[in-house]
Amino acid sequence: MKTLFDKVCVIGVGLMGGSLARAMKKQGLVKTVIGTSRNSENLQQAVKLNVIDRFEADMTIAAAEADLIVLAVPVGAVENVLQLIKPVMKPNAVLTDLGSTKQNIADAMRNVFGEVPDNAVLGHPIAGTEQSGVAASFAELYEGRRIILTPLVNTNADALEKVTALWQGVGAQVMNMEISHHDEVLAATSHLPHVIAYAMVSTLAKMNDKQDIFKYAAGGFKDFTRIASSDPTMWLDICLANKDALLDVVSLFKDDLDELANAIEVGDKKKIHSMFSFAKTARDAITSADNVDK
Amino acid sequence: MKTLFDKVCVIGVGLMGGSLARAMKKQGLVKTVIGTSRNSENLQQAVKLNVIDRFEADMTIAAAEADLIVLAVPVGAVENVLQLIKPVMKPNAVLTDLGSTKQNIADAMRNVFGEVPDNAVLGHPIAGTEQSGVAASFAELYEGRRIILTPLVNTNADALEKVTALWQGVGAQVMNMEISHHDEVLAATSHLPHVIAYAMVSTLAKMNDKQDIFKYAAGGFKDFTRIASSDPTMWLDICLANKDALLDVVSLFKDDLDELANAIEVGDKKKIHSMFSFAKTARDAITSADNVDK
Repeated sequence: MKTLFDKVCVIGVGLMGGSLARAMKKQGLVKTVIGTSRNSENLQQAVKLNVIDRFEADMTIAAAEADLIVLAVPVGAVENVLQLIKPVMKPNAVLTDLGSTKQNIADAMRNVFGEVPDNAVLGHPIAGTEQSGVAASFAELYEGRRIILTPLVNTNADALEKVTALWQGVGAQVMNMEISHHDEVLAATSHLPHVIAYAMVSTLAKMNDKQDIFKYAAGGFKDFTRIASSDPTMWLDICLANKDALLDVVSLFKDDLDELANAIEVGDKKKIHSMFSFAKTARDAITSADNVDK
Repeated sequence: MKTLFDKVCVIGVGLMGGSLARAMKKQGLVKTVIGTSRNSENLQQAVKLNVIDRFEADMTIAAAEADLIVLAVPVGAVENVLQLIKPVMKPNAVLTDLGSTKQNIADAMRNVFGEVPDNAVLGHPIAGTEQSGVAASFAELYEGRRIILTPLVNTNADALEKVTALWQGVGAQVMNMEISHHDEVLAATSHLPHVIAYAMVSTLAKMNDKQDIFKYAAGGFKDFTRIASSDPTMWLDICLANKDALLDVVSLFKDDLDELANAIEVGDKKKIHSMFSFAKTARDAITSADNVDK
């Protein structure tokens, strides 16, 4: 494929950043991938695994050379990273990110640059696993997945086009969305389920029959709770970054749970059946719909 | 394998009953499987798919011949079925069930027979899929899965031994448990997750951005909500049958969710991180533990 960027700096070489690095290299979309992070042991492993071409322990050295800078750190760390790299960035360097929340990334850019820079293209790939770390990264992570970009009115058309081409080049399907809409949709589909899964596993792990509870867990339980194995630091950041939208949907969920629990309490069969059927119909429609994710 | 029963009557030939019928036949554990249910179209399909040897639309005819009667109907329908078959059952016929709740099955037996009969061996296989119906049944459903039996002091040793051998013969791992303990453990690991999944999918399906919410759902969301595709009638029955244990654990979960939402509201990073880490540690331990289910 056509080379889109000569030098790419990936800041944070974990599951997400590492998988993008692998995929960009595999598809020949970039000439050199330089990795950087706070953890140089991790960077050495990334070079050994051929995820990146080389690393710089000093983030400013890595960022200074780059034509594309990919922010792949937890969303709560983005502002500090931007402060560090701002003085050294090439004027035409394109800036992008992989964060699960977009308003707080835009805010971080405004705090550091006074505005979201024209060359910044914020993005969020709807992909991932409950694993974390560079060892879990793989070049196919984004194949067939959706990536949401949230361009603003001032976003440079060329930068947007190149970031779009990059994601298409690694096999993803690119969609554009308003920042606020992105954050609401993700609060519902991703952040709420994580909060619920963490809370529910906590509940069970505190019970007296904890041993038997986990021993007799069926396959459904394991699927249902898989996301509670996600990285706590990353999810702490996401929950705080998207606090308002998340708490809104948590509150709606609590109302529905109360309604259902009350119906069970009083034995209102009609109401319980109607809630279960409504949910089943909605859930069944996901798998039958024309969705990229299977 | 050694034949354990000559004639088996399976009442309710859906995913669970159908899979057991297929497995018993495949392993040569029984001579003849007679299916019966309220739905004769379903029974015709079961014969066509070779799930059962023959069917009787009249439940009393099927039950009258049987050496083993398997109750594979929704738990709320068991008492009516028992009333119907009581007058025709052979004195030595063994009675077993596949229900997800055990106290209410024992209660149904006491209501019909005055006590849980000596030849009754109540059981609950920890297996299943979100599918339902005989077409979804398969002989391997119980292989490598746990089956919990809840024998009582008066349970006939020979009946218990034969039901145990039957489950082992279809590849399941048999465990014995107290009825009340079973119901508590299952409320936590199975009934609570179903209630939460149904409520959460309802919440999302009522939101204005419903279209986008389901469109941008990632793989994690699909795993998390898979159980909301389960059969509403079956789960209505289970929730009511195990109401007390279920509502207890729903209440504990609500407390934990509130605690977490409050921590997010006030930005208590330490508390959020500690709850997430606690849950992750507990969840990670499931997959690393010596569990039968993978």
